[in-house]
Amino acid sequence: MERTFKLIIEYDGSDFHGWQRQKKDRSVQETIEKSLMIMTREEIPVIASGRTDAGVHAKAQVACFKTRSKLDSSAFYNGLNSLLPDDVAIRACEPVPGDFHARFNAISKHYRYHIANSEVAPVIGRQYVWHIRRPLNYCAMRSAARAFLGTHDFKAFDGAGSPRAHTVRRVSRSEINVCGNDNLTYDIEANGFLRFMVRNIVGTLVAVGLGKLVPEEIHPILAAKDRSRAGATAPPQGLFLMAVAY
Amino acid sequence: MERTFKLIIEYDGSDFHGWQRQKKDRSVQETIEKSLMIMTREEIPVIASGRTDAGVHAKAQVACFKTRSKLDSSAFYNGLNSLLPDDVAIRACEPVPGDFHARFNAISKHYRYHIANSEVAPVIGRQYVWHIRRPLNYCAMRSAARAFLGTHDFKAFDGAGSPRAHTVRRVSRSEINVCGNDNLTYDIEANGFLRFMVRNIVGTLVAVGLGKLVPEEIHPILAAKDRSRAGATAPPQGLFLMAVAY
Repeated sequence: MERTFKLIIEYDGSDFHGWQRQKKDRSVQETIEKSLMIMTREEIPVIASGRTDAGVHAKAQVACFKTRSKLDSSAFYNGLNSLLPDDVAIRACEPVPGDFHARFNAISKHYRYHIANSEVAPVIGRQYVWHIRRPLNYCAMRSAARAFLGTHDFKAFDGAGSPRAHTVRRVSRSEINVCGNDNLTYDIEANGFLRFMVRNIVGTLVAVGLGKLVPEEIHPILAAKDRSRAGATAPPQGLFLMAVAY
Repeated sequence: MERTFKLIIEYDGSDFHGWQRQKKDRSVQETIEKSLMIMTREEIPVIASGRTDAGVHAKAQVACFKTRSKLDSSAFYNGLNSLLPDDVAIRACEPVPGDFHARFNAISKHYRYHIANSEVAPVIGRQYVWHIRRPLNYCAMRSAARAFLGTHDFKAFDGAGSPRAHTVRRVSRSEINVCGNDNLTYDIEANGFLRFMVRNIVGTLVAVGLGKLVPEEIHPILAAKDRSRAGATAPPQGLFLMAVAY
């Protein structure tokens, strides 16, 4: 009998070419599938809530897989954790109904982006932040972040090469938080994300923080659907997939 | 005219064989001295408040150097930061009187040790913690930590190969703090430290947390001056030199 399991996965994206299986490069998906193969002798596709790009981290990516093996969820939890390398870990494993689908059933996702805004680049934890040397106007960034709230066509923030069925997404959280003098985080929650969407939004918020754009320009940029008017794509290492809701 | 400068230095110890210059291996001292050589064409010894061992990190190591160069402190600050690799940075540089000595003038040092106490090893930030899987008794560890306060002969916690002039140190802070369910830190401040002293104390606190020792045994272990009765040496990657007072 075939059963379905849901996994919650933490990974450090630094040495992965993203979630998705690649021909040559190391991916999180392939790493987990290889361990499942060792445990079950089955070739098991593992389906995530969505891809994360090369260098992006996850605190709680969600994925699912189907197996004919008799192993239970605690055997998968312990077995995978003992087989996986130290930059990926299973935080939870549980049986789910056979019609559960990690991608299609996801109703929202939460991403967090870390920025260090200091004269000298951070050393401890530099793998996990974008360092920006010039002082950022946090107030202007906060105001710009609010402009993304609600339902918008995010075509101007889409990094995909090919056209999409549609580029409208509903953003339910979009906020800048400041920790200490030098560190800020950007939290965004939405019912779905386009490719590079978070990193393109962060790049745009930083353009606002540096005075290259004003917060009032966000709505016209969204309306114009013109990628070239938004900011550059922020680097991957500051980005974390924090949670997926079902 | 020779002038003296004081540096505050942050480093990620992961890829260094400690502070002190080695024949072959990469050290923080040599890395900074090489950059000073490029800037001044002088061979300048850089003297730290003390060594840190291979794999140990620093948020604020203090060091000093003397130079005949005409460069001022802001030139050293900017120049060194542009020359140094990304795992070491200068946080401050200032001129100090010629009799300042980073080691002999230090009156106390503060170290912090990070432990992750969770079933599965942490992934994000794993470079900076000691992971312990079995549940630790935080209460017992807190009580054991307090036993180190005051002036004691720390011979039982000395990892040096050769005998020392004396092994008495005065500990002014020794406390366990818990962050969330899974993370604890140990802070210790003293007028001086023996080799591996913090890591030997942490190993002993963990032995208490695991029930291998009771807090009441700390004083007898100190009194017996017997290294074999104290706990094992904790690994280096959880340890940070946080501050040096003058």
